[in-house]
Amino acid sequence: MKNILLKDDSALYYECGYSCDNGVYLRLGSESWFFTDGRYAIEAKEALKDTELVVTSDLYSSVAKYLKKYKVKECVYDPKEWDCESFHRIDSEVKISWKLEPSWSHRQRIIKSSKEIEYLKLASKAGARAFDDISKAFSKKGFGKDERELHFLAERILRKDGKRELSFEPIVAIGANSAKPHAIATKRKLKSGDLLLLDAGVKYNRYCSDRTRTARVVDGFDFSTIQGFSSKKIQKVYDTVLKAHDRAIDKARCGMRASEIDALARDVIEKAGYGDYFVHSTGHGVGLDIHEMPYISSRSSTIIEDGMVFTIEPGIYLPNAFGIRIEDSVVMLGNRAEVL
Amino acid sequence: MKNILLKDDSALYYECGYSCDNGVYLRLGSESWFFTDGRYAIEAKEALKDTELVVTSDLYSSVAKYLKKYKVKECVYDPKEWDCESFHRIDSEVKISWKLEPSWSHRQRIIKSSKEIEYLKLASKAGARAFDDISKAFSKKGFGKDERELHFLAERILRKDGKRELSFEPIVAIGANSAKPHAIATKRKLKSGDLLLLDAGVKYNRYCSDRTRTARVVDGFDFSTIQGFSSKKIQKVYDTVLKAHDRAIDKARCGMRASEIDALARDVIEKAGYGDYFVHSTGHGVGLDIHEMPYISSRSSTIIEDGMVFTIEPGIYLPNAFGIRIEDSVVMLGNRAEVL
Repeated sequence: MKNILLKDDSALYYECGYSCDNGVYLRLGSESWFFTDGRYAIEAKEALKDTELVVTSDLYSSVAKYLKKYKVKECVYDPKEWDCESFHRIDSEVKISWKLEPSWSHRQRIIKSSKEIEYLKLASKAGARAFDDISKAFSKKGFGKDERELHFLAERILRKDGKRELSFEPIVAIGANSAKPHAIATKRKLKSGDLLLLDAGVKYNRYCSDRTRTARVVDGFDFSTIQGFSSKKIQKVYDTVLKAHDRAIDKARCGMRASEIDALARDVIEKAGYGDYFVHSTGHGVGLDIHEMPYISSRSSTIIEDGMVFTIEPGIYLPNAFGIRIEDSVVMLGNRAEVL
Repeated sequence: MKNILLKDDSALYYECGYSCDNGVYLRLGSESWFFTDGRYAIEAKEALKDTELVVTSDLYSSVAKYLKKYKVKECVYDPKEWDCESFHRIDSEVKISWKLEPSWSHRQRIIKSSKEIEYLKLASKAGARAFDDISKAFSKKGFGKDERELHFLAERILRKDGKRELSFEPIVAIGANSAKPHAIATKRKLKSGDLLLLDAGVKYNRYCSDRTRTARVVDGFDFSTIQGFSSKKIQKVYDTVLKAHDRAIDKARCGMRASEIDALARDVIEKAGYGDYFVHSTGHGVGLDIHEMPYISSRSSTIIEDGMVFTIEPGIYLPNAFGIRIEDSVVMLGNRAEVL
């Protein structure tokens, strides 16, 4: 096994069953250590699997000492995980040939175990229930509230009043604001008949859910994918996005390149004449991180395999008018994409 | 002026009046540029001061092009601001002598302007009002709720249902949990007579407030510094922390080293026999970031000057029993510390 030095939260947790905001994981051959400070010693000791705990007030010089003690000549690290200062603190004390491997941990995690798939399913179920609760809450007390207030109301439901964690900051966008793929909540107020885009997810045992729905908000509306808009143009765009979404899920198979799955969705949108308005890739992997491998983009040559979990989220964004995105997370099982 | 390359949000905002999550600021002599992608072009153009906008889909190679075009030989950067991958992307394309200056931007920002002090005052006032509202809410509906639920309720009030930003994730700790300086909310439920520690802050125009109170929670309690505990031991510790807090604020003067202000508080606690239980420094600067210079610690030789803003937050933490911390933010004005 290669020597590896990790710092990212999810990477640490995946390798040794524990992480905290001041930790480093080092593996040399078949031995591994977790470095942290006294505040986390008890928790770390309980949770660590097959990894020795090193409690230290100076993480980086301790890591350097181990690298010197074991006369390490070569070590892998992911430059995305490290800030220049922390890395420099180690690097300045040792003479090592560093092997840069961006996304090293994401590569390890690309195929999910059955336990991970179970957690991802439970996260997705909890996320879907929250969407139901949000539609009920918006229906009851959303009209007249602005995007920032709706955002907070959605967050409150997603977080179960503090008892659950978000996968990411939810996006709540009304009308023209939905045309920005990463809209920031404004003072625009919700009124009956408005188009509303909700992109949100929650965590279960640290695993993320991710889902987007676009709906016409009237009394008693819901976030199902069956939506009736009063504007013919909006309906046409909506139906196009839904078709792209359904096609990619129906036709995804193992052995395809990720770019082929992207094309399954993109072709539908291009043929309908909206190709220029589908401004992002079709999806991304989901796991301990909300964005991981495989990336379902036109440039990705990753071969799709059973056990991979990713989103399918085509969208069409007409500037200053409206945007539609429909997103589900899927797992490849038995050569088919199953919606989580 | 030195050439400087910045990436941190607050550093960008301070230099050019704008920041976003995909931006880099470069200053070469008297000229400066802000690099970002198309999503932020409109906002950036409106907000940037004395800085030219460069819209690019590849930030790092664009920065490298400018460094090459202007034949830059030497440039300052703060290694804390940069992840290894982004920095490597620039560094690998240019031949430059990089000057590492950790906390470069914090150094620029150590003396606050009158406008910044105004914003910090308004943030502190809003924070103090939120503490009042939280005590009322806890008094009315806090009993029987666990720390996670109280945390969320406090957050809801601090964030004004989504209309305001937090300076940092608030700390809400009951009883023995308050003995951990960075307690994580548990399932412990609040009952009448419990000791409760609340450490929280909000932002005004991006400037942070920071305040901690420890209170005995009974019906109608408040977060003033006058607290009556039924336990004599708790009262003695509380009075010691309050005395340390008051002394540091009363006796802080310009021209002192930050370590002398730390000693003003620490001496009181040491003389009372609790020196081993005051496990952190007396305070830290507050501004665009919740932690910045000057650091009020026993090792800091920073000379205190008018216009500096920092916290005074002595604490005593008795493991498995309870912890007391009392914190205010102050500004040095006319050679005195004025509580914000």
